[in-house]
Amino acid sequence: MEKVIRVGLLGAGTVGSGVIQVLEMNRRQITERVGAQIQLKTVLVRNLAKKRPQLEGYVLTDNIDDIVKDEEIDVVVELMGGLEPAREYMLKAMEHGKSVVTANKDVVAQFGKEMFAMAEKHDVDFMFEASVGGGIPIITPLKQCLTANKITEIMGIVNGTTNYMLTKMTECGSDYDEVLKEAQAKGYAEANPSADVDGLDAARKAAILASLAFNTRVELKDVSVEGITKITPDDIEYARNLGYVVKLLAVGKDSPEHGVDVRVHPVFLPKEHPLAAVNGVFNAIFVRGNAIGEAMFYGQGAGSLPTASAVVADIIDVSRDIVNDTFGRVRCTCYEQKRLCPLEETESSYYVRLLVDDKPGVLGLIATAFGDAGVSLKSVIQTQRNIVDHAEIVAITHAVRHASIQAALQELKGMPVVDEIRNVIRVEKEQV
Amino acid sequence: MEKVIRVGLLGAGTVGSGVIQVLEMNRRQITERVGAQIQLKTVLVRNLAKKRPQLEGYVLTDNIDDIVKDEEIDVVVELMGGLEPAREYMLKAMEHGKSVVTANKDVVAQFGKEMFAMAEKHDVDFMFEASVGGGIPIITPLKQCLTANKITEIMGIVNGTTNYMLTKMTECGSDYDEVLKEAQAKGYAEANPSADVDGLDAARKAAILASLAFNTRVELKDVSVEGITKITPDDIEYARNLGYVVKLLAVGKDSPEHGVDVRVHPVFLPKEHPLAAVNGVFNAIFVRGNAIGEAMFYGQGAGSLPTASAVVADIIDVSRDIVNDTFGRVRCTCYEQKRLCPLEETESSYYVRLLVDDKPGVLGLIATAFGDAGVSLKSVIQTQRNIVDHAEIVAITHAVRHASIQAALQELKGMPVVDEIRNVIRVEKEQV
Repeated sequence: MEKVIRVGLLGAGTVGSGVIQVLEMNRRQITERVGAQIQLKTVLVRNLAKKRPQLEGYVLTDNIDDIVKDEEIDVVVELMGGLEPAREYMLKAMEHGKSVVTANKDVVAQFGKEMFAMAEKHDVDFMFEASVGGGIPIITPLKQCLTANKITEIMGIVNGTTNYMLTKMTECGSDYDEVLKEAQAKGYAEANPSADVDGLDAARKAAILASLAFNTRVELKDVSVEGITKITPDDIEYARNLGYVVKLLAVGKDSPEHGVDVRVHPVFLPKEHPLAAVNGVFNAIFVRGNAIGEAMFYGQGAGSLPTASAVVADIIDVSRDIVNDTFGRVRCTCYEQKRLCPLEETESSYYVRLLVDDKPGVLGLIATAFGDAGVSLKSVIQTQRNIVDHAEIVAITHAVRHASIQAALQELKGMPVVDEIRNVIRVEKEQV
Repeated sequence: MEKVIRVGLLGAGTVGSGVIQVLEMNRRQITERVGAQIQLKTVLVRNLAKKRPQLEGYVLTDNIDDIVKDEEIDVVVELMGGLEPAREYMLKAMEHGKSVVTANKDVVAQFGKEMFAMAEKHDVDFMFEASVGGGIPIITPLKQCLTANKITEIMGIVNGTTNYMLTKMTECGSDYDEVLKEAQAKGYAEANPSADVDGLDAARKAAILASLAFNTRVELKDVSVEGITKITPDDIEYARNLGYVVKLLAVGKDSPEHGVDVRVHPVFLPKEHPLAAVNGVFNAIFVRGNAIGEAMFYGQGAGSLPTASAVVADIIDVSRDIVNDTFGRVRCTCYEQKRLCPLEETESSYYVRLLVDDKPGVLGLIATAFGDAGVSLKSVIQTQRNIVDHAEIVAITHAVRHASIQAALQELKGMPVVDEIRNVIRVEKEQV
């Protein structure tokens, strides 16, 4: 008789419904690929009274014990989101010998190591492909396909909301508030958009990606974060004229000199960079390794079915392990303890936009101020922009330490001819 | 004591040297990731007399038995290329209980099923990530990360030589012979460039990709192939003006109506398509699945270290199986026998460029001829192009069967006003 792998599902929201749909619509394919049937048995829901026609035929419960203590269930799939009780339930499931699949970036970013330790202790699998990049395969590539490499850089567009907003601002010249309203109307942004626009969502994913890429534990608190709320149509236009596009990136770098440097912030990205063409709600993760060179993984970073694609792939992977009577082929990969590079030591080129008095000699004064602070300039332009008695100066610096650019900005702030520092955005240098 | 996995390498050419280099430069990382040491033991070379300083410390042999009959060797890595004796050696290795890793697209495209059967019979792994797309992870994503999907379409830029040539023709307006010479000078194209420019290399990869994506056996003979030798700067300029770029694509489609349709040919690709931005020697594979939607995998499709990245990833994967005392978690995935769509039944839009007499009424005659053959037109333009008494007509058709476009071309050929059918290229329709 064909083996049956039974699944308990925690949460039947957007992604949970997608998982049920994928398991149903591709049932025959999945059975062939696993060599066993995957059967959803029980679903944990918050409110048993709510009508859920799509859950007909499955056992519904509001008691976690009905799943973790059910000896028939082999795999627990956590799609509730948030730290607690999701974390607690996953640990319980592992204690009861069940492999766990999750899409929960909060838990993985903060307690990944603990989850792996528990999985190892109880001889089960712990998988989380859907926690970063929605449907895009990136966790498995990092843990498996790119293992021949020392990875030196990982850069991702990992938040669809902000990428949609920046794309719209670029295509239509609209301003931030306008595109935010539009994104909210389309359901791409939440009523309280902070987690997206302030970069926190991307920061969690950055922590997960950097931990995997660099084999050292990076937590949310280690990621320096800056969102997109200060980006204006003017910045985007300057970027275009200078040959860049503006993207919110999760950036991780690892070098012998600086250690591991992980941040989320807007970036001027050269328009030839593979990530520059990633538009709308799409996500992509770019990786540089010492053997593979450059690689990029592109796809839909959110949505019910794309995310379910990643969750079900993990369920299939776990099921193959069960069928082959193995587990934990790929363990926690944080076997190093690398130095984390403090923000002050990080190096970048910068775009600096200033509002200045429109007088002869101002550009010279500004350039000298940068030079005095040890910041060398790649280019500097002055434009009128129809502001009476004022001009704008846009400078692009060469790569400098964060501390140096801060010193330069301090200096500029104190100058009588400088009326406002309008924006400061990192510039990703061209590929060699 | 730490376990040691011993490797026998067949072939020490470009990729083989890359594998040795990667195993050495990332030794510590790889040991951590596997939980065992991977040690290259023996290398099969053609000529023992040749000096090879990079092989110092390894056993060299010109006798395959020294590897396949060596009980210490766990994994045989085949990087000789070509059908025989590569195939024979791999089968021998499996018969002796060794897992096999290969980059050999010829053997996988033609004998993949046989290789899997032998692997299954002898309880070993058979892996071939490097056979398509060089360093780009695409085989493992298809066999593992995208398994929750029914894949309906796979399109790839899988030949770096032709992509480099088409990119140069697009960027510099150079003609085919000129860029071929340049590509040969740079080592991107071989002295006899036929396998690349005529599409055969891409066709082998198309067969492998389609077999994996659609779970049915597709062999080289099932792939209809057309190369890039007829592409002119004029075609590329028309493409640009109409919003397309010209790419050589490996295309696989699977639909209930038509079955599985696999081809290699130049395509007018909408410039917004993710593959349109893949330039130079880079490769990328675009996949559409019924859960994930669109996904794309991008990277270096050739070269010593990138290809070695994929080979060593497979060695690591096999080694993890050995460490965990399992094998064959992922078997041959050709469990279906789908209908292959004959070329005549395939459907595409087409770009048709004609040289015609420059007389009033010609455009009408041409349009009528298309219509009579049942081919409906999306657009048709007539240009002078400085040819005395002649004009060019460029028509873009709606999607039609291959048989219908052939009928229309037959009709056009017979018309007195048509002096030459200058080119016919498929047009990939815009994404919905």
